[in-house]
Amino acid sequence: MLEKIDLDKTLSKDEYRKAVGTLEERIGSLQRAVKERGVPVIVVFEGWDAAGKGTLINRLLLAMDPRGFSVHQTLPPKEEELYRPFLWRFWINVPEKGHIAVFDRSWYERVLVDRVDGAVTKKECDGVYGDINAFERQLSDGGYRIIKFFLHISKGEQKKRFRKLEKSKATAWRVTDEDWRHHRQYDDYYRAVEDTIVHTDTVWAPWTIVEATDRRFATVKVFTVVADALEKGISRHGGESAAEYVTGTVLPDQISSTVLDSVDLSKSLAREAYEEELDRYQKKVRKLEHLVYVKRLPVVIVFQGWDAAGKGGNIRRLVQKMDPRGYEVIPVGAPNDAELNRHYLWRFWVRFPKAGHIAIFDRSWYGRVLVERVEGLASEPLWRRAYREINEMELQFIRFGTVLLKFWLHISPEEQLRRFEAREADPRKRWKITEEDWRNREKRDAYERAVNDMLVKTSTPDAPWVIVEAESKLYARIKVLKTVTEALEKRL
Amino acid sequence: MLEKIDLDKTLSKDEYRKAVGTLEERIGSLQRAVKERGVPVIVVFEGWDAAGKGTLINRLLLAMDPRGFSVHQTLPPKEEELYRPFLWRFWINVPEKGHIAVFDRSWYERVLVDRVDGAVTKKECDGVYGDINAFERQLSDGGYRIIKFFLHISKGEQKKRFRKLEKSKATAWRVTDEDWRHHRQYDDYYRAVEDTIVHTDTVWAPWTIVEATDRRFATVKVFTVVADALEKGISRHGGESAAEYVTGTVLPDQISSTVLDSVDLSKSLAREAYEEELDRYQKKVRKLEHLVYVKRLPVVIVFQGWDAAGKGGNIRRLVQKMDPRGYEVIPVGAPNDAELNRHYLWRFWVRFPKAGHIAIFDRSWYGRVLVERVEGLASEPLWRRAYREINEMELQFIRFGTVLLKFWLHISPEEQLRRFEAREADPRKRWKITEEDWRNREKRDAYERAVNDMLVKTSTPDAPWVIVEAESKLYARIKVLKTVTEALEKRL
Repeated sequence: MLEKIDLDKTLSKDEYRKAVGTLEERIGSLQRAVKERGVPVIVVFEGWDAAGKGTLINRLLLAMDPRGFSVHQTLPPKEEELYRPFLWRFWINVPEKGHIAVFDRSWYERVLVDRVDGAVTKKECDGVYGDINAFERQLSDGGYRIIKFFLHISKGEQKKRFRKLEKSKATAWRVTDEDWRHHRQYDDYYRAVEDTIVHTDTVWAPWTIVEATDRRFATVKVFTVVADALEKGISRHGGESAAEYVTGTVLPDQISSTVLDSVDLSKSLAREAYEEELDRYQKKVRKLEHLVYVKRLPVVIVFQGWDAAGKGGNIRRLVQKMDPRGYEVIPVGAPNDAELNRHYLWRFWVRFPKAGHIAIFDRSWYGRVLVERVEGLASEPLWRRAYREINEMELQFIRFGTVLLKFWLHISPEEQLRRFEAREADPRKRWKITEEDWRNREKRDAYERAVNDMLVKTSTPDAPWVIVEAESKLYARIKVLKTVTEALEKRL
Repeated sequence: MLEKIDLDKTLSKDEYRKAVGTLEERIGSLQRAVKERGVPVIVVFEGWDAAGKGTLINRLLLAMDPRGFSVHQTLPPKEEELYRPFLWRFWINVPEKGHIAVFDRSWYERVLVDRVDGAVTKKECDGVYGDINAFERQLSDGGYRIIKFFLHISKGEQKKRFRKLEKSKATAWRVTDEDWRHHRQYDDYYRAVEDTIVHTDTVWAPWTIVEATDRRFATVKVFTVVADALEKGISRHGGESAAEYVTGTVLPDQISSTVLDSVDLSKSLAREAYEEELDRYQKKVRKLEHLVYVKRLPVVIVFQGWDAAGKGGNIRRLVQKMDPRGYEVIPVGAPNDAELNRHYLWRFWVRFPKAGHIAIFDRSWYGRVLVERVEGLASEPLWRRAYREINEMELQFIRFGTVLLKFWLHISPEEQLRRFEAREADPRKRWKITEEDWRNREKRDAYERAVNDMLVKTSTPDAPWVIVEAESKLYARIKVLKTVTEALEKRL
């Protein structure tokens, strides 16, 4: 989830001013409506130390009528709280109807701080995730609106901020030894945060990851999500149950996640180096394939990418020297009748490889959040639900010990055009390009948005997306081969 | 769940014939409708060896058109299956639209057999429950209708059946050494079954426990639930999500669970013995109360029961010799404004005792599935959902180490009438009896049904209901005191 987030996003002062004024007004009047309709709202702020939670919360509250909200700071538990089940102190602070409760850190400390400190083991976390999901589902079923933010900054940025605070006498006291200890544990926390978000990003209480390097950007993003959530909360009718109530906001471009924008498409590789490496890696892969079989390792490799980005060519180079008994390439197109007649994940489960074998998916279960989303083949509730369904499925693959690799082959629209035209000009390749390809091309923006969302929401620690800079075919092929060999070597 | 089930339930041949003919016809025509509307259905049969799964499944299939269903027997996994995630072999067998897949044993073997055999630890089960719930939720969200049966017989009944099979040469081969090994592990399985049902009894895929001592009874119960589920499956519109789709059947009296019917209300205690035991137990309780404080044990005791069953009197005797600083009695009436303005469980969470203290609830969170259900104060989706919400909450109490005791004080309607009349005749007690009490009395049947459902659905291994035969006040008081002291002694 965090890995793909572009932390360099900023807003200019002008953009900020323009956006924030309107948002403040909107939030103010929505809060009044929330009060009138008696909707209880819970806003959770989690995030790195020094990510700016305090400032952001204050900023948010300024937009609101103080009689309508309360802020709850979650400090290390007091005796009072230690002597009760861990959710007790949050239960007692759930807001009444029409009120907004803001939690500055929350019940998630149990699977973040407590896990990193060893008070809760990784295995025990499964039970706690269950408790937390039950808690949030019960509240949502009871009419509560739940908004959860994780404020994300890099380790370097955190260090910079601590240093800056320490420099001034007025603020030096704010950086404690514990803060520095946490800073050194950044990577452990990172892993805990990733696991937590994967397990608790539900339809009824979704997470929003906020790029918090730039405070203006963070503020506008938080304000936008809050405003949208309040708006939806008001229009929600009472009888709706948790899973039915589809939340989630389509953010304006200005503040949406844009993983693809920061991909460096200038990467390339000379023909000579390519030939050499191709040979070397292909031989390696063949050796590893044998070990995969001996050690009974299940391997799943997924290829997604723009039309003409080179999925076919990449797969061909990957398997060229492999023993065909050890792998299977599974081309995924529009579902057939037998597939349409079952759950959409069925056809992928069926193709799960026997341990010791490698399944290579040419397109995959990600169709639901890409083509089906953009073309309107799946309704919004369906594709929104799919992120969690996909993560759950992949989690089960991972738990079984699967090596799961997911490649997104990225090319620019210009390069795509060149390849389309080249294909049309070449009689041997003309069949490869269809009317549909041209139509898809026109929807590049909508697809980019879907790809960005997918990369953020389904990149998990054990099943990360690997973005392949595919503008240079040679570079892309070697990157894929290298990634596969390294991932297998790590596990064999 | 299992503990409260009355396994002696039977149907006469006549009752059976009358019921089953109609049900067969209904199922036959519903199956056709299911096919027409393209509803996919999954029926799971779990249960003890020799509980009659095979016979019942055959019986059910006879009512159906063989082109519309398939049966999947879940044997110990083959190589093919061991080499894939454990849900794989069930995923590949999900039925297509309009078809019914019957699973003779299922994915639950993972948390039953595998747990008892030690292949999966108790802690790991949390993760597996999560996987199973995700699997069933995904299917339900995808339009699948899921029906789950657990066929229940006692350990003694199982032994009898094994013996009977062994006696005849024609059937002796059916009882294996492994069956006898499982038989000896009955109690371990029992615990695994209880835990499993608590964790996986969801709104979208609820369990039905079938009293399977009498085959006629079991058949009619299974047929009724299947028919109702198919009927609901047909009328379900496509867009509904899992949690919204409230399943659950109100069974006809003939085959509903009737825990209360088997309560022996003739139990009594002589005054002399009472005085002696009262004194003895009250002194014990006082000592234990001190230890509770020293050991920081959290204790929650819940009293529910018929009007005039003696809740007040029992609580008074329980606390009579206790140190008032160590306990709190919490009378629960209609919720006040502050409580109505929050989630219905909020007011109970707030009163959770500090570890080392004893909270005694005079009525409790069970109001939702009793008075609120019967009086129509909570809609059907609300009270149906509540069983799981309550189990989840109590599970969290238990995990925190709480001693949780729940008493149901039971009296006959005749005894209740006598007590009401005595109260009215006594000017000092007249205030205790209201119009409402008389009204409630007239709804005895509806309340009995609600109580029976509650006792079955919320009696869990760590939070069992204790039914107190309260026709004799003296007997009841000693039973309560004895139960409390024993439960505390066990933990101190």
